[in-house]
Amino acid sequence: MKTVILAGGKGTRLWPLSRELMPKQFVRFLDDRSLFQKTVERALLFSKPSEIFIVTNRNYRFRVLDDLRELGVEIPEDNILLEPSARNTLPAILWATLRIEEEFGNSVVAVLPSDHLIEVNEAYERAFENAERLAKNHLVTFGIKPTRPHTGYGYIKPGEKIEENGRIIGYTVSEFKEKPDLETAKRYVESGYYWNSGMFAFSSSLFIEEVQKHASDVWEAFEESGDIEEAYNRVPEISIDYGVMEKTDKAAVVPLNTKWSDLGSFDAIYEVLEKDSDGNAVRVRGKKGYHVGVNSRNNLIMTERLTATVGVEDLIIIDTGDALLVAKKGESQRVKEVYKALKELGDERVIVHRTAYRPWGSYTVLEEGDRYKIKRLTVLPGKKLSLQMHYHRSEHWVVVRGTAKVIVGDREILLRPGESTFIPAGVKHRLENPGKVVLEVIETQIGEYLGEDDIVRFDDEFGRV
Amino acid sequence: MKTVILAGGKGTRLWPLSRELMPKQFVRFLDDRSLFQKTVERALLFSKPSEIFIVTNRNYRFRVLDDLRELGVEIPEDNILLEPSARNTLPAILWATLRIEEEFGNSVVAVLPSDHLIEVNEAYERAFENAERLAKNHLVTFGIKPTRPHTGYGYIKPGEKIEENGRIIGYTVSEFKEKPDLETAKRYVESGYYWNSGMFAFSSSLFIEEVQKHASDVWEAFEESGDIEEAYNRVPEISIDYGVMEKTDKAAVVPLNTKWSDLGSFDAIYEVLEKDSDGNAVRVRGKKGYHVGVNSRNNLIMTERLTATVGVEDLIIIDTGDALLVAKKGESQRVKEVYKALKELGDERVIVHRTAYRPWGSYTVLEEGDRYKIKRLTVLPGKKLSLQMHYHRSEHWVVVRGTAKVIVGDREILLRPGESTFIPAGVKHRLENPGKVVLEVIETQIGEYLGEDDIVRFDDEFGRV
Repeated sequence: MKTVILAGGKGTRLWPLSRELMPKQFVRFLDDRSLFQKTVERALLFSKPSEIFIVTNRNYRFRVLDDLRELGVEIPEDNILLEPSARNTLPAILWATLRIEEEFGNSVVAVLPSDHLIEVNEAYERAFENAERLAKNHLVTFGIKPTRPHTGYGYIKPGEKIEENGRIIGYTVSEFKEKPDLETAKRYVESGYYWNSGMFAFSSSLFIEEVQKHASDVWEAFEESGDIEEAYNRVPEISIDYGVMEKTDKAAVVPLNTKWSDLGSFDAIYEVLEKDSDGNAVRVRGKKGYHVGVNSRNNLIMTERLTATVGVEDLIIIDTGDALLVAKKGESQRVKEVYKALKELGDERVIVHRTAYRPWGSYTVLEEGDRYKIKRLTVLPGKKLSLQMHYHRSEHWVVVRGTAKVIVGDREILLRPGESTFIPAGVKHRLENPGKVVLEVIETQIGEYLGEDDIVRFDDEFGRV
Repeated sequence: MKTVILAGGKGTRLWPLSRELMPKQFVRFLDDRSLFQKTVERALLFSKPSEIFIVTNRNYRFRVLDDLRELGVEIPEDNILLEPSARNTLPAILWATLRIEEEFGNSVVAVLPSDHLIEVNEAYERAFENAERLAKNHLVTFGIKPTRPHTGYGYIKPGEKIEENGRIIGYTVSEFKEKPDLETAKRYVESGYYWNSGMFAFSSSLFIEEVQKHASDVWEAFEESGDIEEAYNRVPEISIDYGVMEKTDKAAVVPLNTKWSDLGSFDAIYEVLEKDSDGNAVRVRGKKGYHVGVNSRNNLIMTERLTATVGVEDLIIIDTGDALLVAKKGESQRVKEVYKALKELGDERVIVHRTAYRPWGSYTVLEEGDRYKIKRLTVLPGKKLSLQMHYHRSEHWVVVRGTAKVIVGDREILLRPGESTFIPAGVKHRLENPGKVVLEVIETQIGEYLGEDDIVRFDDEFGRV
């Protein structure tokens, strides 16, 4: 089976945990694996690395590459499809399916969103085996057995049984249902409807036929464009559900009885996390953080710091070093209004975390003051920053860990932990990690102007000159 | 009039805003003046600097000196009485009164707590004039006219009018009342009782007589001890209210109609702050912080960061860089339970803020990592740190502002903004601000062990060798 991983979503409802350049599929908020990495691991159950295709936004290219490198999974870079802009799921899935047809001919394709949480168990594996059987003649969806009448999910009403060798391997789809109100949701659950998981399986040729039939504008945008840029300029923004699944008569549903959540809000995150005896779900990052609760119940607390709560219930407290959110459970959908307000104010904290990722590693702004800025730079083994110069600031580098190769003007020096160097304004310089372990450097910038745009690049491994 | 300022209180109910080494009278949380500084300004209405006496804990000596220096008020250092330990208000007031008698003979003395908020207006000035007249024959308390039936304050039931030239200048005290329940408080307010403000005025000789009469153990501890150390070892912990005011038949009350709060809890702070149109009282420190509220009402928000609230009411959100408190209004008294829990855990964040004060200035820990620590040092003009050495860490200093005179081993150098130096482990060094403006230095420490106790001092201006 070939697998398409959808990793282009940006989401605004988990701010400040996620940011525009670090959407939830790449954030490590459950454990030390991102949701994207967990999805790659699931894809590897049925596909070889060369059979996995990832559709994502251009902005996330290095996030995808870093996550794969960390996993040690070698997916060919050609399999990473970088969308010029966001056009919802149907164009993304069609593009990847066309690429799979081109490379492998007609194939069974599984489509996995990378920002959901799903438990892999025997039922999961059996469902995918059933889906593979059905995929020749059906566009298969996976229907999660509901655990409660959730109003935040779409539902699938199953139709006729589909049997193979006397065993039920799925159902036709009688109807797709939009997110219901609570009463309707209760009826759905009682009537045996399934949650629409957003996962699919189909044979590539059948899928392409159905797109041609039901979403001809999407098809034509790809068929008639010279390149992907043009296709994405032409193609409408449309989901696979709305464009194809709700229209085709070939839809089938494979029931899947496993733990699943779309993690679409902080309320959903609270639901999936483990709670302490007071019902608090607490996740702490960093060695100085912990939670002290006095008369506090049923709160979600994600923090990097010492966080005390007194007499509060049903709160969502998200602390990310540069921003703090305190929200009432049940209102966490309205976090997107905060996001919008910050966007209008031009606050960059909707775009990046305190830690910003670069192709060579990352940097974290530790402190910004009047006339100085302090950063921690992390340079990956074998990587180097561009050869650069700043007009308005001098920089001081102190090596904390690893070995640095530094060019300052005409000199080239090696710096070990505890050693430092000074780069005056106007002098060309370059930082490189020639070693096998991560290089960590504390940078103190001093100057009248400290914007990231005071940079002149002379040479760059990543094409940024 | 002579004035005694009580500045030894430590308070645990405003954590994390206040800490053991930075109690609320020194924290700038209302504006850029501390409550202590505001109290000194009030004292100056009726007393010359040499007539003002400050009783505080030894730990707060440099806090008092810094606050006075910043105000530009030259109170003789002999007037700053440093208590070896906390013994509540009566020993503190007696000590200061004895010092005043010794220096000035029998005098009228006003006693001002430094951790309350009080508005100075015409009524305030008139009340002190009346108190001065009454002080010869009375121990005068100031009774605040209640604005509501507050259950957190003690009350004073006035007795007979005391007139002078046909004008009422005060009342005898009929009774002191403990903090009442709501029903009782309503009755008190209706019956014309006053809030007990904790401010007093009396002639020194009368006060000493009354202490001898009603609190002979306190008197004897001072009378019979060779020094203040011994006196504080012997003296019981007792308030002026309990030890003298409630027992004497010489108590009088001067009504005072002005805004007043003991700021005894975050609820009280919320009450005195200005609110926006949603009833939120927001105070932001630092240039990167602000509040974005979606459907959020009647919250107290004190923060250094971008803080968003969604769908929350009646919360207290206190963010101080190194710690976060989220509490329900009405439960803010229970903050002391958090304090106790942290104390038991040995968490130093009950003792100091991210910024720690030293006689030469202050330092702020910006970041602590594995094997490195970054601090911002602020050195006051003309001050120098001790000549010192560390066994386990090297240090890098970058000057951000001002001029540094630096001794490293045998060398002495001057560093200007943007310049830096390196101090290897095991090398003697010293940092000095020879200039007229504040010196700011970023220090990066690298080493296996980075505790504050890895310091060998060879010479120190402040007697810390």
